[in-house]
Amino acid sequence: MTDPLFERVAILGIGLIGSSLARALRRENLARVIVAGDRGDVPARALALGIVDEATDDLGAAVTGADLVVLGAPVGATPAIMEAIAPHLAPGTILSDVGSVKKRVMDMITPVLPEGVILVPGHPVAGTEKSGPENGFAELFHGRWCILTPDADVPMGAVNKVARMWREAGMIIEIMEADHHDRVLAITSHLPHLIAYTIVGTAANLETQMSAEVIKFSAAGFRDFTRIAGSDPIMWRDVFLNNREAVLDILQRFTEDLTALQRAIRWGEGETLQALFTRTRAIRQAVVDARQA
Amino acid sequence: MTDPLFERVAILGIGLIGSSLARALRRENLARVIVAGDRGDVPARALALGIVDEATDDLGAAVTGADLVVLGAPVGATPAIMEAIAPHLAPGTILSDVGSVKKRVMDMITPVLPEGVILVPGHPVAGTEKSGPENGFAELFHGRWCILTPDADVPMGAVNKVARMWREAGMIIEIMEADHHDRVLAITSHLPHLIAYTIVGTAANLETQMSAEVIKFSAAGFRDFTRIAGSDPIMWRDVFLNNREAVLDILQRFTEDLTALQRAIRWGEGETLQALFTRTRAIRQAVVDARQA
Repeated sequence: MTDPLFERVAILGIGLIGSSLARALRRENLARVIVAGDRGDVPARALALGIVDEATDDLGAAVTGADLVVLGAPVGATPAIMEAIAPHLAPGTILSDVGSVKKRVMDMITPVLPEGVILVPGHPVAGTEKSGPENGFAELFHGRWCILTPDADVPMGAVNKVARMWREAGMIIEIMEADHHDRVLAITSHLPHLIAYTIVGTAANLETQMSAEVIKFSAAGFRDFTRIAGSDPIMWRDVFLNNREAVLDILQRFTEDLTALQRAIRWGEGETLQALFTRTRAIRQAVVDARQA
Repeated sequence: MTDPLFERVAILGIGLIGSSLARALRRENLARVIVAGDRGDVPARALALGIVDEATDDLGAAVTGADLVVLGAPVGATPAIMEAIAPHLAPGTILSDVGSVKKRVMDMITPVLPEGVILVPGHPVAGTEKSGPENGFAELFHGRWCILTPDADVPMGAVNKVARMWREAGMIIEIMEADHHDRVLAITSHLPHLIAYTIVGTAANLETQMSAEVIKFSAAGFRDFTRIAGSDPIMWRDVFLNNREAVLDILQRFTEDLTALQRAIRWGEGETLQALFTRTRAIRQAVVDARQA
């Protein structure tokens, strides 16, 4: 039996993604010791699930001796977490994260990164609308993409170790610049979530009887939006606050397109509608062909 | 063995819904003879699938002798279909449909409805993004709602026969007025589809490299929209053209809500975002509790 990839992995924020990673690390024997750091009753719940070896609400203690630290909390918590752990990070430690926004997270971490600690930011593009360590599962990552956005001066050895971890968890690795990541995710993830939150909110604002009927007849399309809009509120608040420019930019394009469609409906321009609906069908086929459906 | 509910059922437009109904009729032994009427090679394909007893592109012949005729084509085809079949509908025949829009369809049919033919409009609220007789399946209707919108002067006997058919197919029946149906479906179905078509169109308009990446990383939310936006273009063109007022009305509310959210992001109002995202999560739970998830 070969040595594990890491001696001690500290996962700070053991929610859906963090706990799924813990399960994948265990399954693939990638860490000798897995430590969870979190708040309230979460460490106890993670321990009870048997997915980590240690769990604590003392983040400094959690990272002490760790050769890999993974930030798994909503990105807005990054400054507070860094303040708690920075004095305890040893030179040579790899610091990574799983945040849906990369540029701002790197801007938060870099100025307070201790000498010799290596930052390899990551974003496993996988998830469900559920939260908490109870809802994680090791297969969550299977066949999905993991995007790493290390700065140009980061040693390849550290990048390769993080890449190998996610690969063993089942993911396909892509490396790109943080800015580019944030623009791509603004359209593939952040805008869809914003739209879903909005439409479900619009329905919630209807008179009470109508709202009840919306739930009753939700199978006609609406329910898919409720699933997305059931995602973790804190995590998503932080995504929008920290990828503001890219989200507002793509939202502007979306609004223009929606206005054009609205006008086509008002004026009964069937050909415009049909042309768009035919074009989007081809995109669906491309998603199916790319095995991301 | 009891007599079937109907002697001869003609399904005009044997696509996803029509062919699923044919399969359910057969499974539950609800019709002595099932006839498909459609265009091009569709009748031959339906026959080859073994889901109907007869199939033809002569709609007049299809409905001759039928005691139930179900319109299964996109709602825009209704006037042409009525013109073809009206001379062949015998008094006492029940005419029903499966359209996603009810008021306009009734307005199209009522003036040309032959004396003694009974109109029981219906909308089985079920579907997938796929089209064509090959993609239908009898279980499509299981546990879903079927909304009937008969006029006040329609005899209950005919309503009950149509209701019984859908109930045996696995559906739960709700009776409401056509106008009300169109307002409820505008929010639960038409707006979600419009939004999904728009966002997928917005992505398709991005520069080529970005579009490719959008498909690659679609698992982060976008792919759910591509599924919805992969729905039948003709069917959906007709829905928007024929439920214009209700769609434009709910779209206006949606746009206001989206603008408010856009403003909250621009000004960094985290509490506004979090409050909405928490509220929408409760709606998701209600959908799950209503077993429509």
